[in-house]
Amino acid sequence: MSAPRPQAEGEVAAAPAPAPAPPRHSGELGSTQASHRLLAYSDALLSIIATVMILPVAHTKIHPDQKLGESVQQLLLTKIAVYLMTFLIVTVAWTAHVRLFQVIVLIDDVLALLNLACMMLITFLPYTFSLMASFPGIPFGIFMFSTCAVVIGLIQAVIVAYGFYHPYLLNHQIQVSENQAFYKHRILQIILRGPVLCFLAAIFSFFFFPMSYVLLGLVIFLPHITRLIIWCKNKTVGPKDDESHRLEAFTFYLNEPLSKERVEAFSDGVYAIVATLLILDICEDNVPDSKEVKDKFHNRLTEALSEYGPNFLAYFASFVTTGLLWFVHHSLFLYITKATRFMGLLNTFSLAFIGGLPLAYQLTSEFAEKSPNEIEAIQISCVITFFASIFQFAIWITALFHERETLHPLARYGGKEHAFMFAKLALYPCVSLGAFFLTCLLSKFSTAIFHIMQIVVPFAFLALRILVKISLAIMKSMLSLSRRKNVVLDEEETCLSPAETLS
Amino acid sequence: MSAPRPQAEGEVAAAPAPAPAPPRHSGELGSTQASHRLLAYSDALLSIIATVMILPVAHTKIHPDQKLGESVQQLLLTKIAVYLMTFLIVTVAWTAHVRLFQVIVLIDDVLALLNLACMMLITFLPYTFSLMASFPGIPFGIFMFSTCAVVIGLIQAVIVAYGFYHPYLLNHQIQVSENQAFYKHRILQIILRGPVLCFLAAIFSFFFFPMSYVLLGLVIFLPHITRLIIWCKNKTVGPKDDESHRLEAFTFYLNEPLSKERVEAFSDGVYAIVATLLILDICEDNVPDSKEVKDKFHNRLTEALSEYGPNFLAYFASFVTTGLLWFVHHSLFLYITKATRFMGLLNTFSLAFIGGLPLAYQLTSEFAEKSPNEIEAIQISCVITFFASIFQFAIWITALFHERETLHPLARYGGKEHAFMFAKLALYPCVSLGAFFLTCLLSKFSTAIFHIMQIVVPFAFLALRILVKISLAIMKSMLSLSRRKNVVLDEEETCLSPAETLS
Repeated sequence: MSAPRPQAEGEVAAAPAPAPAPPRHSGELGSTQASHRLLAYSDALLSIIATVMILPVAHTKIHPDQKLGESVQQLLLTKIAVYLMTFLIVTVAWTAHVRLFQVIVLIDDVLALLNLACMMLITFLPYTFSLMASFPGIPFGIFMFSTCAVVIGLIQAVIVAYGFYHPYLLNHQIQVSENQAFYKHRILQIILRGPVLCFLAAIFSFFFFPMSYVLLGLVIFLPHITRLIIWCKNKTVGPKDDESHRLEAFTFYLNEPLSKERVEAFSDGVYAIVATLLILDICEDNVPDSKEVKDKFHNRLTEALSEYGPNFLAYFASFVTTGLLWFVHHSLFLYITKATRFMGLLNTFSLAFIGGLPLAYQLTSEFAEKSPNEIEAIQISCVITFFASIFQFAIWITALFHERETLHPLARYGGKEHAFMFAKLALYPCVSLGAFFLTCLLSKFSTAIFHIMQIVVPFAFLALRILVKISLAIMKSMLSLSRRKNVVLDEEETCLSPAETLS
Repeated sequence: MSAPRPQAEGEVAAAPAPAPAPPRHSGELGSTQASHRLLAYSDALLSIIATVMILPVAHTKIHPDQKLGESVQQLLLTKIAVYLMTFLIVTVAWTAHVRLFQVIVLIDDVLALLNLACMMLITFLPYTFSLMASFPGIPFGIFMFSTCAVVIGLIQAVIVAYGFYHPYLLNHQIQVSENQAFYKHRILQIILRGPVLCFLAAIFSFFFFPMSYVLLGLVIFLPHITRLIIWCKNKTVGPKDDESHRLEAFTFYLNEPLSKERVEAFSDGVYAIVATLLILDICEDNVPDSKEVKDKFHNRLTEALSEYGPNFLAYFASFVTTGLLWFVHHSLFLYITKATRFMGLLNTFSLAFIGGLPLAYQLTSEFAEKSPNEIEAIQISCVITFFASIFQFAIWITALFHERETLHPLARYGGKEHAFMFAKLALYPCVSLGAFFLTCLLSKFSTAIFHIMQIVVPFAFLALRILVKISLAIMKSMLSLSRRKNVVLDEEETCLSPAETLS
C-alpha cells in the first residue's frame, strides 16, 4: 500500500468552525473519508426500522363494544410479539454494525455503497418477520428471513475483506498489529457466526422448519449466552491467564462494541420517531372532510375539531412523555463515560417499551370517558411508562456498580449531582406506579388522575433541582438535629465519663 | 455570576474513546451541558415533521380507470402545496433554531425542557397548515397556525432572555463582548420579527383574513427578501463602512446561520425518513390475509406475495435512489467547508423534491403494465429525480463561485477529485433526463427503460472512479495527440520562422 497513514495530511485551513471531519486523502485509491456521517445515517435508518412494527399494532381497530381484555390478548399473541422480536433483531443487526465499524474506522465510496446495500436488506427484515408471524405454518417467511440475513452477513464479510485489503481503513491498533491475519479471521468468524446459523435455518425450512425457529432464536441470544457463560466461568474458575492476555487488546473492540456516541444516536432516532408517530396519524386522518363540515357543522370548524379533541390530547401526552424520557436519557448519558454491553441491553429494553407509548396513549384516546375499557387503557399506559423508565433506572444502577469506569466523577456516590440524577430517574417510575395504584383504588377518577399526572410531571422536572435542594437541606438539618441530640446525649454522658468523648 | 467559565473544569479522566461532550460544571446553577445531543434530537424531530405531509399525498387513492392527469391536478392544488409549504415553514423554523443555538452554545436542564416545549409546538404546525389548506375560507386554521407561531416565538424569546441572564451559556464572542445588551436586543428583534407578523395575522384572521395570508407569506420569505435587498444594495451602492464594520462580528453568527454539522444532520434525517416511508406502508398493508391465502392460493404464500411484487420493486427502487442521492450529498458535503445561506436554500429545495420520491415510485407500482397512466408516472418519477439531483448540482456550482471559502482545497478547480465530484453530481441529472426523453420517444418500452436505469445506476456509481479515470486518460491522450499535431505543425512552421518557437 502506498499511503497507509491518511492522518498525515493536514486539516482544512479555512474552516471557521471546528470542522468535524475533513476528508483525508490517501494517494492511490482516491479519497478515504471519516465514517461519522455514514454511521449517523445508518443509525437513523436502523432506529426507524426498529420501531416500524409498532404501526400495525397501533392501527389495529378495536371495536368500542368489544372488551379490551380479549383484543389485547389477541394483539399480544401476534403483533406485539412481532414488534418486540423485530426490535430485538434490528438491535442485534445494529450491534453487529457498531462492531464492524469499530474495526473499520475510515471509509471510501465502495464501502459507503456496500453499507447502503446492507441497510436496504436490513430494512426488509421486519417485513419477512411479520410474514413469519402471520403464517407460522408456512416455511416461506423463515426462508426469506434467513436468506436476507445470509446476504447481509456476506456483504459484511465483503466489507471486512475490503477493509483488510486496504489496511489504512482499519482501526489504528489493528493497522499497526503484526498478526493482522489472525484479527481478520477472528472478525470474520464473529460476523459470519449468525449468517451460518441462518443458512442452516434456511436449509431446515424446507423439510423440518421448527428447527429453523430454534436456530434463529439462537442467533438473537447467542452473544448474550456466550457472554453469560464467560462471565460464569470467570467467576467460578477465574480468568485464564495467557490466552485472555493475548486477546485482551482485541476484545476491547469486539466485546465492548457499544460506542457511547452510537448508542446515543440510535436512541435519539427511536425517541424522535416515537414522539412523532401520532402526529403522522393526526395529519393524515384527523383533518375533517370539508363537505361534512359544511353539512353537519354549518362551517363551524371548531365544533368539527372538538370531536378529535382526545386524539390531540393523546398526541401531546405521548410527545411530552417521550420528550421527558428522552430528557432523562440525555441527562443520564451526559454522566456515563462508557456504555457496556449489558447497559446497551437494558437501553434496548427501555427503548422497546418507549415504542409502545404512542399505542398506549392512542388507546386512552379511543374510548369515550367512563367506558369500561378506559381504566385498562390508562393502566396499560402506566405500566408501559413504568417499564420504560425503570430500565433507564437500571442502566444507572449498573453504571454505579462500576462507577470508576463508567461514570463521570461528578455523578458518583455522595455528590449533589448524584442525588439530583437519582431524583430525575426515580420520578417517572414513582409517578407511573403511583398513578397505577391510584386508578386501581379510585377507578371512578382514573381519567382525572391520569390528566393531572400528565400536567404535573413536566413542572416537576422544571422544579426538580429546587426540590432536591430543599429535600437535601431538610435531610441535612434533620441529620444535624439528630446529631445535636446525640451531642447533647454525649455531653450528658461526658459528665459521667469524660474519657469517652476524647477517643 | 459565580462561575462564568465552565471550560475551566477538567475533562473526564477515565474516558477511553474521545469523549464527545463531558458535562461541564458551573458552581451555583447546577450542571451546564454541551448542546450537541439536544441539537441532534431537534434535527431528527424537525426533519421528520418536514416530510410528514408527504404521507397524505402518497396515500391518496387514485382509481386505476381515472386518468392520472386529472387526479394529479387535483393533488397539485392542495396536498402537494401543503407538503411544499410545510416543508418550507419547518425549514424556516429550523433555520431560526440553528441561529438561536449558535448564540447559546451551552444548555442546562431548563433550556432543554424549554426547547422540548418549542419542538412540540413546531410538530403541530403541519396539522394547522393542512387545516388552512383544506378550509381556505374559514379563518380558524390560520388563527391556530399564527397562535402556535407566536407561542414558539415567545418560548424562543424566553430562551434568549434566560441565556443572557446566565451569560456562561452564551457564545464565547458574545460572552466577552462589552455591549451584551445591544446583542440581546438585536437577537430578540430577529427572533420576534416573525412572531409579531404572525400576531398581526392572528388579529387580522378575525375580520379580514386574506391579509393574514399575505403576512404569513411575508414571514417565510422575509429572510431571503432582506438578504436580496442587502445584496443588491451592496452591489449598487457599495457596503456602508462604519455601521457594517460594527455589525460584522455579529452578522457572522446571525446571517450565516447554517452550521455545516446541522445541515448534515437535518438532511440525514430527511433522507432516512424518506428512504423508509414505503417500508412503513409495506409492513402494514402488504402482509396477505391468512384466510385469503388459505382459500384463494391453497397455502401457496409465494403466489399470494407475487401480487405485491410491484410494491416491493417500488420500495427497493425508492430506497436505492434515496440512498444514492444521500451518497452524493454525503460526498458533496465532505468537500464543503462552510454552508452559506443560499446553499442551505438550495439544499432545502433538493430535500423537498426528495420527499416526493416515494410518492413517485408508488405511482409507478400502482398501475398495471401498459396502462395509459404508467408512462406519466414514470415521467413524473424522472422529473422529481432530476430536480432533486439538479439542486444538489447547484449547491456544488454555488460553492465553486466562492471556492476559497467554501471548498476543501482538494476539490477545487483542476484537481482529479474535482472531475470525480463533477461526474458524481452529474450522473443522476443526466440519467433521469435521458430516461425522460427516451420514454417520450419509445413509449412502448418505458417500463423496461425505467428498470434498466434503476439497475444500471448503482453499478455506475461503483465504477465511477474507474470511468472518470479512463475518460480523463482518453481526454489527456487526445489533448496530447492534438498537441503533438500542433508540435508537428509548429516544427513545420519552425522551418520557416525559428524565432517564434523560442518565445
